[in-house]
Amino acid sequence: MVGGGQGAYIGNIHRLAARLDGAWHLVAGAFDVDPDKGRAFALSQGIDPARSYGSYEEMIAGEKDRSDRVDAVAICTPNFTHYPIAKALIEAGFDVICEKPLTATLEDAIALEALARESGRFVGVTYTYSGYPMVHEARVRIAAGEIGKIRTVQVEYPLEWMAAPIEQQGNAQAAWRTDPKKNGRGGSIGDIGTHAYHLAGFVTGLKLASLTADLATFVEGRALDDNAHVMMRYEGGARGLLWSSQVALGNSNGVRLRVFGETGSFQWYQEQPNELVYAPLDGRVQTIKRGSDEVSEDARLRSRTPPGHPEGYLEAFANLYAGFAEAIRARRDGRAPGALGQNLPLTYDGLKGVAFVEAVVDSAEAKEPVWLTPVAV
Amino acid sequence: MVGGGQGAYIGNIHRLAARLDGAWHLVAGAFDVDPDKGRAFALSQGIDPARSYGSYEEMIAGEKDRSDRVDAVAICTPNFTHYPIAKALIEAGFDVICEKPLTATLEDAIALEALARESGRFVGVTYTYSGYPMVHEARVRIAAGEIGKIRTVQVEYPLEWMAAPIEQQGNAQAAWRTDPKKNGRGGSIGDIGTHAYHLAGFVTGLKLASLTADLATFVEGRALDDNAHVMMRYEGGARGLLWSSQVALGNSNGVRLRVFGETGSFQWYQEQPNELVYAPLDGRVQTIKRGSDEVSEDARLRSRTPPGHPEGYLEAFANLYAGFAEAIRARRDGRAPGALGQNLPLTYDGLKGVAFVEAVVDSAEAKEPVWLTPVAV
Amino acid sequence: MVGGGQGAYIGNIHRLAARLDGAWHLVAGAFDVDPDKGRAFALSQGIDPARSYGSYEEMIAGEKDRSDRVDAVAICTPNFTHYPIAKALIEAGFDVICEKPLTATLEDAIALEALARESGRFVGVTYTYSGYPMVHEARVRIAAGEIGKIRTVQVEYPLEWMAAPIEQQGNAQAAWRTDPKKNGRGGSIGDIGTHAYHLAGFVTGLKLASLTADLATFVEGRALDDNAHVMMRYEGGARGLLWSSQVALGNSNGVRLRVFGETGSFQWYQEQPNELVYAPLDGRVQTIKRGSDEVSEDARLRSRTPPGHPEGYLEAFANLYAGFAEAIRARRDGRAPGALGQNLPLTYDGLKGVAFVEAVVDSAEAKEPVWLTPVAV
Amino acid sequence: MVGGGQGAYIGNIHRLAARLDGAWHLVAGAFDVDPDKGRAFALSQGIDPARSYGSYEEMIAGEKDRSDRVDAVAICTPNFTHYPIAKALIEAGFDVICEKPLTATLEDAIALEALARESGRFVGVTYTYSGYPMVHEARVRIAAGEIGKIRTVQVEYPLEWMAAPIEQQGNAQAAWRTDPKKNGRGGSIGDIGTHAYHLAGFVTGLKLASLTADLATFVEGRALDDNAHVMMRYEGGARGLLWSSQVALGNSNGVRLRVFGETGSFQWYQEQPNELVYAPLDGRVQTIKRGSDEVSEDARLRSRTPPGHPEGYLEAFANLYAGFAEAIRARRDGRAPGALGQNLPLTYDGLKGVAFVEAVVDSAEAKEPVWLTPVAV
Repeated sequence: MVGGGQGAYIGNIHRLAARLDGAWHLVAGAFDVDPDKGRAFALSQGIDPARSYGSYEEMIAGEKDRSDRVDAVAICTPNFTHYPIAKALIEAGFDVICEKPLTATLEDAIALEALARESGRFVGVTYTYSGYPMVHEARVRIAAGEIGKIRTVQVEYPLEWMAAPIEQQGNAQAAWRTDPKKNGRGGSIGDIGTHAYHLAGFVTGLKLASLTADLATFVEGRALDDNAHVMMRYEGGARGLLWSSQVALGNSNGVRLRVFGETGSFQWYQEQPNELVYAPLDGRVQTIKRGSDEVSEDARLRSRTPPGHPEGYLEAFANLYAGFAEAIRARRDGRAPGALGQNLPLTYDGLKGVAFVEAVVDSAEAKEPVWLTPVAV
Repeated sequence: MVGGGQGAYIGNIHRLAARLDGAWHLVAGAFDVDPDKGRAFALSQGIDPARSYGSYEEMIAGEKDRSDRVDAVAICTPNFTHYPIAKALIEAGFDVICEKPLTATLEDAIALEALARESGRFVGVTYTYSGYPMVHEARVRIAAGEIGKIRTVQVEYPLEWMAAPIEQQGNAQAAWRTDPKKNGRGGSIGDIGTHAYHLAGFVTGLKLASLTADLATFVEGRALDDNAHVMMRYEGGARGLLWSSQVALGNSNGVRLRVFGETGSFQWYQEQPNELVYAPLDGRVQTIKRGSDEVSEDARLRSRTPPGHPEGYLEAFANLYAGFAEAIRARRDGRAPGALGQNLPLTYDGLKGVAFVEAVVDSAEAKEPVWLTPVAV
Repeated sequence: MVGGGQGAYIGNIHRLAARLDGAWHLVAGAFDVDPDKGRAFALSQGIDPARSYGSYEEMIAGEKDRSDRVDAVAICTPNFTHYPIAKALIEAGFDVICEKPLTATLEDAIALEALARESGRFVGVTYTYSGYPMVHEARVRIAAGEIGKIRTVQVEYPLEWMAAPIEQQGNAQAAWRTDPKKNGRGGSIGDIGTHAYHLAGFVTGLKLASLTADLATFVEGRALDDNAHVMMRYEGGARGLLWSSQVALGNSNGVRLRVFGETGSFQWYQEQPNELVYAPLDGRVQTIKRGSDEVSEDARLRSRTPPGHPEGYLEAFANLYAGFAEAIRARRDGRAPGALGQNLPLTYDGLKGVAFVEAVVDSAEAKEPVWLTPVAV
Repeated sequence: MVGGGQGAYIGNIHRLAARLDGAWHLVAGAFDVDPDKGRAFALSQGIDPARSYGSYEEMIAGEKDRSDRVDAVAICTPNFTHYPIAKALIEAGFDVICEKPLTATLEDAIALEALARESGRFVGVTYTYSGYPMVHEARVRIAAGEIGKIRTVQVEYPLEWMAAPIEQQGNAQAAWRTDPKKNGRGGSIGDIGTHAYHLAGFVTGLKLASLTADLATFVEGRALDDNAHVMMRYEGGARGLLWSSQVALGNSNGVRLRVFGETGSFQWYQEQPNELVYAPLDGRVQTIKRGSDEVSEDARLRSRTPPGHPEGYLEAFANLYAGFAEAIRARRDGRAPGALGQNLPLTYDGLKGVAFVEAVVDSAEAKEPVWLTPVAV
């Protein structure tokens, strides 16, 4: 692991998720830009001091030639460092698990996607919400035609934690996220809108044709958008509406997806992730429960407990880690991955996310409103 | 009453609402374009045959000079007839209660608004959702600064009943709503988007600065949009997102409003109208119940039962009727209306609604995307 | 109407409910034990002063021989007066609509039931919750065998308004309800437990075989129970659990019924009365919406608006009034009543309710716990 | 670990929970009554074959004298084997983590509790629901007097999975649970009622004074109750109602606790475990979110993610395992355990649970109804 040391929220999530199913062991890391802090943290995690490194470069040098070298490296650093770290790791022959967004700039994303493709290295991107079993359930059913041709997609990701100018009050997590150099050009749209965009595409299988967007910065002094409205047109005629916000009081982590087709709809809300609401044309409204007999194999594989025993965010994240393990293992074994190792967010998904954010910002910054097509869809 | 005869959904609603509080008595009407049907229906309602008319012209002629002439006339006909009927009524000196949208065309709306203003006649428009007590509660609290300056408004009105081409299968309600000549240029946006737009403006007090829109027609052969996405910019910097749809399976009548300010948010959902969800900056989420001690006088006045005894759509509609009665009575008495007679949807609100629909359609039909300002806001 | 004057909560509900569907006109009344107050109130309601009476005896005398005498009289007075008033009305040949509980004592209930039966007068009892359309939906489906043989019934009616000793602080509504002489022997069990008991029996069609109960009085100085727990055994083997409480903070009017059968279950919650939750054996959970195509004729008849347009407490109450009107009219016409006039709460239901309360109190007061069978089931 | 091999539901849960926080490593086990199956399973879990045992006796013999012997042993076998296994482990000096109920008989429970107490060995019992952070939140707030003196407790645990006679159709999990010899005398009350009883006592701190119960067996041919109704009286005057059911269609795992005090109430529902609903005397209803700033230290310590990132059943179970680790470590270190190592379900809680079940069955089997006091409360 690179980054994710003391006090890093997402690093801890990665560790919990990797550990849950027993498929991964954390054995080495460069956890902090401050080498001493990184080493102290590694010690607290029970990591062999010989494999606790002061920087990712040191880690590459130290691990490269070990017979028991790490199978993959998780990158849990601020956005702008994703590219150089991933590049170095790939070039040294490591597989990579990278936090989203893939990179802070479109050029980096294009380059990294090409590098991953050409090198044959595995690069997974942690679009967490695609790890939820009931998200897979919706995906499988839509692919099977259960709601017919899709008409409109409503997706939103409202958060409340940045409603006040906390980046000006010492909150480090907020500070780098509002710094264009470290975060990239998209504020809420880059940090969370990209999750919503991926989720919508993942579940529906739709490709974006064009978008037009309106960004706003409501907190005074903030350098990036904290609220984004995006109208989308998908190939084939479906339309979409996307809202991301970091100032939406009352929303802890309100990811919500609603997909409406010709013959039915699905609704999924991340804060009650064990349920998928299905409404067919005949007027019934049905709740499909995770773990029940009626869910698909793809959802069942990503589920550990029976219905009524709630699973949540860590289990979804663990599904990604279990899937990455299966995908990497299958490739090494020269076989096709099992279902867990399929339908994973990979480099091209990461590139699409960055391209989406760029197009949103371009559209919003245009003198006249404009429908734009991202460079990768 | 004009229109609203046998089988007319909204006419029956008007009658129930008018009757509930005992403030109105239905004593005359021209209920159907077919005079015989209209008279048969009048009979079924216990109306004096002498006051059951074959047309609105007959009704005006018959009522005009009676000493006990009707106090006001409710117009419950398809959109395109609102203007001529209202015009005739106003010119004959009657007060009017008109279904939304005010008219089918912008010219008619402008003319009718001017006529109402100049004549001094009362013209109420039945924007139903502004009759709900907890909508007033949100309005009062926002006006009092309880959530600070407003940042973003999310409003939606999804319906499912027109997901199939029912206008091609004999459904009369759907038929005129999809006929541009009878309905006006806006499909879902004109029929229900206008409700959502009014509700958002009513609660927040914000004025629209400009909008850009994307309309879609998903049902083959339908002549008007059945799904609308609108991005809005309000004066003062707030942003809004509006979605209306007639093809959103699973939504019976899913009007939902969420308003986010600097220091709090309110959420109201029409299908559970007795609750208002309030989330202040401190992370708490609170449910405010209709009828409870903490609601304002404005909400209490529009409430008949204690908390836990659900009120609904008819009671909201009845609040409009009770308000119209109070406003008309106050004017006759030469006094200021009581609170029930204030904050009512009137002609200018109707005009704003039609101007909004026109701007949405203009924006969506423009070759290049465009931010437009409605002619009345 | 007898009682229900200025400030009387339930009297106003009766008037709104009677008026909603236009089936009843309030033309006479003795609204208050204080004749002057009663007359002033009658005036405020637009009632002919000649038919505004100082007492129910006066009303009987005044109405008895009018050719346009009232069709029925609603009794909205405290419990202990129900019997003498109803008796006098029946003996004078009037039909009666009586608030629940039917009477304050078991002897009175037995006598009144016999009187009603022998006289042939109509006596409806306003067990409000049996007026809700989705309650009828559950009843119809259970009768049709949709959930198989019933196993267990969970019914509860928690309220919060008497959590503090408000009867000692000037609240008149609470004062008579906690006075055994005016209210009868059952506190929460008599005031609201009787609603829950009726609802469970109404929906399931089950007859009580025996019960054992535990009553508590939590508010110091209160003379009657404010919390009741009852275990029930129904004929045929089904079991039930009933909870009523006047001190359950957080519950405005939390009537909830859950019925579990061999092949399915129904759940209905009064604060969201437009939905019935149905769970068949196969693991699906389905929401059935009032007004939708899948509801029965019995539910449809008691519904005025389409799905998504909430109806509530007043509409349920109005369904009882519309049903009483149909039942009375049918009897006068010498025909069987239509569906609206069937499945109404009548005198025997009222008697069963009083017998239930008596058995609960007897069981709770017994030295040793005891399973008792009410005298009427 | 003893038991919990291939196909064992609860064994897998124990492993996931133990692993999540990295506090435990599974290094040895006797996973199956069939030694070969047990060894194959051990292999699949990556366990050193030298520490994969054919029986718990072998395991004790094999581990007893190792310098790296296991720190504690989890017992995941059917109820009737808990006592002999735990006894042997304790006598051999091992700490124990035991599935609930502690034992199948009251004598065993009394003996085991005494043995644990006298030996000084640690014996944790996995009353899972006491691991949830918001359950601790309620406990802490009630102990702090936030809702005043408790009046009534409503607790229920409905399940649906045994609504059909699945034990007669080859379901092994259902088979031993309906066999009095393997399961003990309580059916639903022993399997899940004991969870509900513990949860209520854990959160409120109340001691049971007496109970009276009604058990039913609805599935033909079933040897134990599958539905239990219990009325409870707590010391100090509070009352309680408990319902457990294995035949409640629509309920996946519907543990629900509601506690009503003089000045407020708390409501917690296991299927939405990240929320605690708080209703104070003033009529507000507030949702308290796991992970938010307003929760107590005790809840925060048992939480890994911010609000809106759902945690669930496995995390609750992991909190027990993390707590057991802390308690065991603290005792070895000769220090008081940190907060995580306090408020854990231990042997006496297990004994109380068994005593409760015995009293329920005794009460239900009595010729005449009877209020009984369990031998341990």
